[in-house]
Amino acid sequence: MNDIITLDFGSGGKKTSQLIEEIILPAFNNDILNSLMDGAILNGHKKIVFSTDSFVISPYFFPGGDIGKLAVCGTINDILMCGAIPKYLSLSFILEEGFKIEDLKVIVNSIKETAEVCNVKIVTGDTKVVEKGKGDGIYINTSGIGFLEVESYGKDKIEDGDVVIVTGPVGDHGIAVMSARNNFFVDSSIKSDCMPLINLANIIFKYGDKVKIMRDPTRGGLATTLNEFVERTQLSIELFEDKIPIRREVLAACEVLGIDPLYSANEGKIVLIAAKSIAEDLLSDIKSLPEGEQAAIIGNVTSSYQGVVVLKTGIGGSRILNKLTGAQLPRIC
Amino acid sequence: MNDIITLDFGSGGKKTSQLIEEIILPAFNNDILNSLMDGAILNGHKKIVFSTDSFVISPYFFPGGDIGKLAVCGTINDILMCGAIPKYLSLSFILEEGFKIEDLKVIVNSIKETAEVCNVKIVTGDTKVVEKGKGDGIYINTSGIGFLEVESYGKDKIEDGDVVIVTGPVGDHGIAVMSARNNFFVDSSIKSDCMPLINLANIIFKYGDKVKIMRDPTRGGLATTLNEFVERTQLSIELFEDKIPIRREVLAACEVLGIDPLYSANEGKIVLIAAKSIAEDLLSDIKSLPEGEQAAIIGNVTSSYQGVVVLKTGIGGSRILNKLTGAQLPRIC
Repeated sequence: MNDIITLDFGSGGKKTSQLIEEIILPAFNNDILNSLMDGAILNGHKKIVFSTDSFVISPYFFPGGDIGKLAVCGTINDILMCGAIPKYLSLSFILEEGFKIEDLKVIVNSIKETAEVCNVKIVTGDTKVVEKGKGDGIYINTSGIGFLEVESYGKDKIEDGDVVIVTGPVGDHGIAVMSARNNFFVDSSIKSDCMPLINLANIIFKYGDKVKIMRDPTRGGLATTLNEFVERTQLSIELFEDKIPIRREVLAACEVLGIDPLYSANEGKIVLIAAKSIAEDLLSDIKSLPEGEQAAIIGNVTSSYQGVVVLKTGIGGSRILNKLTGAQLPRIC
Repeated sequence: MNDIITLDFGSGGKKTSQLIEEIILPAFNNDILNSLMDGAILNGHKKIVFSTDSFVISPYFFPGGDIGKLAVCGTINDILMCGAIPKYLSLSFILEEGFKIEDLKVIVNSIKETAEVCNVKIVTGDTKVVEKGKGDGIYINTSGIGFLEVESYGKDKIEDGDVVIVTGPVGDHGIAVMSARNNFFVDSSIKSDCMPLINLANIIFKYGDKVKIMRDPTRGGLATTLNEFVERTQLSIELFEDKIPIRREVLAACEVLGIDPLYSANEGKIVLIAAKSIAEDLLSDIKSLPEGEQAAIIGNVTSSYQGVVVLKTGIGGSRILNKLTGAQLPRIC
């Protein structure tokens, strides 16, 4: 095997086969993938969830993860947020000529480990290679299929008086990537929160339709996701600034970088809206998991305004939080 | 709306929403996509087929199609080749900063038209933007789900005496793209054969397990696909050079470009192996479709050799056809 990716690896011929047989199949070894058909034949389910994401994060190794781990978490988490248990993933690489085989092996191993934790199978895939200067090392698309568990989630279920819960401190992923990209905070302890949300989601699923909607606030951060929950509805969200968990070091980095942590991407958090009647029980269940220890009720739904998110500041003021404008943090995922 | 894609369009914020609402949703208008969840909730099926492909073709407009049409045909055709009826597609763009919105609209329209012809819904998607010089205009990933119709296809079904059928002349796509890329043959009539194989597949499905395996010979061409059928088996394929349909102008272009048409990509052809007993009936059914008019029986399976493809030449000689070695035609799909 070469040390670097050459155009041959994308030809569909012998080099493509070698890449598949020496790196891909040994990592994801399962009968469905091993059959090397043009697609995977799978057991289905009455209701399925289908999701896709392309990942172009720069740099592709970052504190707390890499593009491989992110690509699995991203799609698995999207499926979970729709109320389904993720089952199968596809995996498609766009590699730039000159990309190190050694780096590919590390990334493939991250994919394998993350998928295994979630009991998800990589069942089909594709590899393309583009000339040097037409990519940036590695881009990955994952698409996934899950079996629907809770069918009731949707913004039309949100009611006046519901509460907003976040499962942990916000902004970590965006700040970790920005730090890595700029070589800021070399000694910093800030890591991406990139992780599969399967354990948290399994707890939330138990509350059935008492949970109205949930989402992992990735690009655009907490503020953009909450706006999506209420835009074009008759309801709004009041958010209490001093209730929102944010790590001290993330807050400090945000000040230096001029970034608002409420718009910084998360890759291991859930924000959800739930009925007030079950909110405390749900919160305490979430807090029982290590990844939910710092969960908090951070706001509530109100009909006082329409379609907006209002931040109540610590000193008693209030301001409208819009969706993210501009590209505060390009290529964060 | 701007004239060109800027990094903001990939931010997950307001510009991303604008792109989705002004270009994506109007084209693919359906209730599932319109819900704008992180994934699509779909009616499933007992057995499903799942396939993925990323498309990096250069140039993204070529004679006979564009990257949008190709991205839909590519994944739909892979699903058909596994014996399933394609139902749902995901659509993920990686756009380069500076890409023309006008070009995006043309490509989105091709996607819409091709998906409609096949009665396939675009149900979920994603858009990422990379900086100028980190992409090449547009890369597209499509993944797709189909409902299984014929479960028996596989190389383990191939038997001594079976015949090899191709549904039309080979090599068109590769040569059309090479011509466009090099501005060769400006006045040439060579067009890509890029098309959905749904009508051909529907005819083939009727023959059940009398058809042993089928594939659309894309990257690596006819020779590579036939090698994949018999590699690591006790059987081999004898191919009759003078039976293989190739357009005269493609053959001429191949000679100029130094390309073997048997290794040139196809995007609208099927090569299959079928029981001898039904071969003539199947061939005549295929020929009844406009896209199958030039179909031919081009070879047969034999146990005289093991795991190889042997080309019987017009003058009575024979040579081994290997899988494609090297990147004869990079970024052909």
